[in-house]
Amino acid sequence: MIVQKYKDMLQGKSVIRQLSEFATARGKEIGYENVFDYSLGNPSVPTPQKFTDTMIKLLQERDPMELHGYSQSLGIPAVREKVAASLNERFGMNYTGNHIFMTTGAAGAIAHAVRCVTEPGDEVITFAPYFPEYGPYINLTGAKLKVVPYYTNAQPINFEAFEAMLTEKVTAVLINTPNNPSGVVYSGSTIAEIAGIMEEKQRQYGHDIFLISDEPYREIVFAGVDAPYPSGFYDNSLSCYSFSKSLSLPGERIGYVAVNPKCTDAELIAAMCSQISRGTGHNCPPSIIQLAVAEVLDLTSDLSVYETNMNILYKELTDLGFECERPGGTFYMFPKAPGGDAVAFCEEAKKYDLILVPSDTFGVKGHFRIAYCIDTEKVERSLEAFGKLSKNF
Amino acid sequence: MIVQKYKDMLQGKSVIRQLSEFATARGKEIGYENVFDYSLGNPSVPTPQKFTDTMIKLLQERDPMELHGYSQSLGIPAVREKVAASLNERFGMNYTGNHIFMTTGAAGAIAHAVRCVTEPGDEVITFAPYFPEYGPYINLTGAKLKVVPYYTNAQPINFEAFEAMLTEKVTAVLINTPNNPSGVVYSGSTIAEIAGIMEEKQRQYGHDIFLISDEPYREIVFAGVDAPYPSGFYDNSLSCYSFSKSLSLPGERIGYVAVNPKCTDAELIAAMCSQISRGTGHNCPPSIIQLAVAEVLDLTSDLSVYETNMNILYKELTDLGFECERPGGTFYMFPKAPGGDAVAFCEEAKKYDLILVPSDTFGVKGHFRIAYCIDTEKVERSLEAFGKLSKNF
Repeated sequence: MIVQKYKDMLQGKSVIRQLSEFATARGKEIGYENVFDYSLGNPSVPTPQKFTDTMIKLLQERDPMELHGYSQSLGIPAVREKVAASLNERFGMNYTGNHIFMTTGAAGAIAHAVRCVTEPGDEVITFAPYFPEYGPYINLTGAKLKVVPYYTNAQPINFEAFEAMLTEKVTAVLINTPNNPSGVVYSGSTIAEIAGIMEEKQRQYGHDIFLISDEPYREIVFAGVDAPYPSGFYDNSLSCYSFSKSLSLPGERIGYVAVNPKCTDAELIAAMCSQISRGTGHNCPPSIIQLAVAEVLDLTSDLSVYETNMNILYKELTDLGFECERPGGTFYMFPKAPGGDAVAFCEEAKKYDLILVPSDTFGVKGHFRIAYCIDTEKVERSLEAFGKLSKNF
Repeated sequence: MIVQKYKDMLQGKSVIRQLSEFATARGKEIGYENVFDYSLGNPSVPTPQKFTDTMIKLLQERDPMELHGYSQSLGIPAVREKVAASLNERFGMNYTGNHIFMTTGAAGAIAHAVRCVTEPGDEVITFAPYFPEYGPYINLTGAKLKVVPYYTNAQPINFEAFEAMLTEKVTAVLINTPNNPSGVVYSGSTIAEIAGIMEEKQRQYGHDIFLISDEPYREIVFAGVDAPYPSGFYDNSLSCYSFSKSLSLPGERIGYVAVNPKCTDAELIAAMCSQISRGTGHNCPPSIIQLAVAEVLDLTSDLSVYETNMNILYKELTDLGFECERPGGTFYMFPKAPGGDAVAFCEEAKKYDLILVPSDTFGVKGHFRIAYCIDTEKVERSLEAFGKLSKNF
């Protein structure tokens, strides 16, 4: 029989998606170049030429049987080894290929990481503001997402609330740094404090509690900001990565889970992912994309536009009197909505063809998200609209 | 905490995988060309040149932002429309793009189809012999796989047992024609009889029962064999397809679910798949692969080698006295194991460097599977080994 749960979910339309559709429709009226569409977090710069060249070379030179053949369900061994070597060099870790599970993007990575370490009914903690897809990502595995309330950007974690919520039912904690939607990058001391609380609770409860670190924005970090690697701070850690943002390949669905070698049963956890795949229908990410990203692991798209845009917007918005934490990375910022009602503010913004996302969808009241992954020229043209909008509040 | 269920699954090593590893190891001793490796069902002919050319053209000519951008989670609309049009033309159906959900291969398709129509605890029926991955595919969704016992190849379905097992708890029936491992293609009357029983039970129980039709071998059908399209026989039907075999692209993970427009809530079921994806981490199959297969929907690899191999093997094996149903399609055949003990027979076969899969893994005793997706030259050289082997029984 048709499953009511998924039917019902169709009713709950994504606010971000609705805003994006509004922007597209408005673009048809006035020209999309005149809509300041800050709704979607999609890369706005092309993939490195070397990725394209590598794909073409694979297609021209490799035996198609080998090129398009099944990868092992854990991923192509040589690709897993290259990912491990790259992480070790960059972050001083000791991964081998056996700790890496190749996935269809961060969504695939989180789907597997959560299933490795939670039984239905277990709880997973995350921190507001958070990527709204964490709700279905976690809850549809049978585990239950619990959200630590928002504190302030200057101190991104409400440690007291976290400690109180970290009950015996919690088997995993999901963090996201650099953070969507706030743009905040956790400092080493923030991560160390999270890790310390988790270690204490592990001892107290006598069971493992895993840190699942969602890191699609790991490579988008601004000048002068230190972005420590979370798995370096905590043994029971699973790092979930996607190449969507760093290589501008969101549609090609490629990422990985990296299981900390110091984790309980580390190699076993990576191997378990291939069993989980049999139920999720994941099996393996596309072979040709695995092979191509393995050749550009230490490259990124030209990500500088995001910092350029951030600097322009941050200066202008703070000059206009908006309260806003300066983002350390990503292509988001998360100012306070003047007047306090984010939904009303973003509705008003539409009148100036500014498409902003109210923070309610990220588990926080009274802020709005600006996804500034658009052309700098458009950012500059949007400043006048922000100026007009701010006068109304 | 680390989930024991998946840990335990790691112990149950696939028999097919073990045989394939044995073949590889033996190949290192005597040269792989001398191992008659009939273990794995992997295509042995390259993808059509047009697929490769299309991929290169997309990479050379398309804006990389657009090419590698997110597809909608249901799949790229133009691709879905082309798939619908192709199915309509070939099978007289009335699909629109809204009935198609693009997936990462047949595994992704089945993972979503089953979740659409079963709640945890519901039962799904399939028929022996069956693809062993159906076990985890179904059971890991929370539904329970029930297997109708094997009857005979000449009459592939044990209808009496099917009818008795089709209790009120069953919400889906999973069929696979052309069949792995038997090579049998269901006739129109076989499918009609399955459909008739399901319709009667739907009326009796007052709830929908869905036919999930797994069709990765749809395009590999031999001369003179009619392979009817199952969804043409039953309204509540979900057709699950993979391009892995027809286009020799198993590693690129591309397929679809086609929801019969006559199905209860047809368009809703397709749309529900995108909600299910949020939990499985599926999201969308790789954009570039979607776009490329859409250009070669009505092409296949040169599949003739499989029929050539079947004819050679079928003649030789029946001449040697093996009892075997003549395959109507796929690249498998499923003779009876002389002596009745399939495991002992396949163990003996290894002495002649013949790698055959005992039928126990397919839910049937006393047969063995030959996956003849290998070069014809090797098939011919293997006949002597079959001759020697048969003398021992």
